Amino acid sequence: MKKINFSSKFTKFNDRWSPKVIAEMNDYQFKLVKIKDDFIWHKHDDTDEVFIVLDGTIFIEFEDETIQINEGEMIVVPKGIKHKPYANKEAKIMLVEPSGVVNTGDKEDKLTAPNDEWV
Amino acid sequence: MKKINFSSKFTKFNDRWSPKVIAEMNDYQFKLVKIKDDFIWHKHDDTDEVFIVLDGTIFIEFEDETIQINEGEMIVVPKGIKHKPYANKEAKIMLVEPSGVVNTGDKEDKLTAPNDEWV
Repeated sequence: MKKINFSSKFTKFNDRWSPKVIAEMNDYQFKLVKIKDDFIWHKHDDTDEVFIVLDGTIFIEFEDETIQINEGEMIVVPKGIKHKPYANKEAKIMLVEPSGVVNTGDKEDKLTAPNDEWV
Repeated sequence: MKKINFSSKFTKFNDRWSPKVIAEMNDYQFKLVKIKDDFIWHKHDDTDEVFIVLDGTIFIEFEDETIQINEGEMIVVPKGIKHKPYANKEAKIMLVEPSGVVNTGDKEDKLTAPNDEWV
């Protein structure tokens, strides 16, 4: 059993929009991601998805509003809801979602990241 | 859809060792807890449990070691593993676990908290 230090894990990668698994709880994974600029519109039909902002500020565009999420804040994106995350400056976030979730959801894109990459 | 601010949620309660639900993702819950002094030895036979330290420092005693977890760190306590959390000064943490998990696990105690209390 080992504790996990977020800052230390973030020093181990620099690619953006490519979630790195840091922990598994039952069949769920905790993933760290560095993000900047625009992601793509997508949805996850089978699961909710949690975004926790650890450093910086992110925005998530939904069809009828855009929500700003700062360090020390989180949001649950319900399954089936189209969303497009973006950040004006690089931000560091943690995702919580079932193992096997693909970052671009229902879309295949150049931003589609490999799954189950641990750091 | 609403973002959740941890600091703001923590101003809404002062009781210790009594997890307050702030979000639900699928059948999992995110709970904030203020802790100080000793909890009791217990285990959760059916689920892993995640502790994320948001403020301060906590310790989790296991049968063969004690792990110190600071702000910006997390740990997964595997199911079935006996543990006893404690904090020397009040610390603020977030738990992630399936809905319905009782804080004292297999033990009934004066520290057993009501379930599904939202804040």
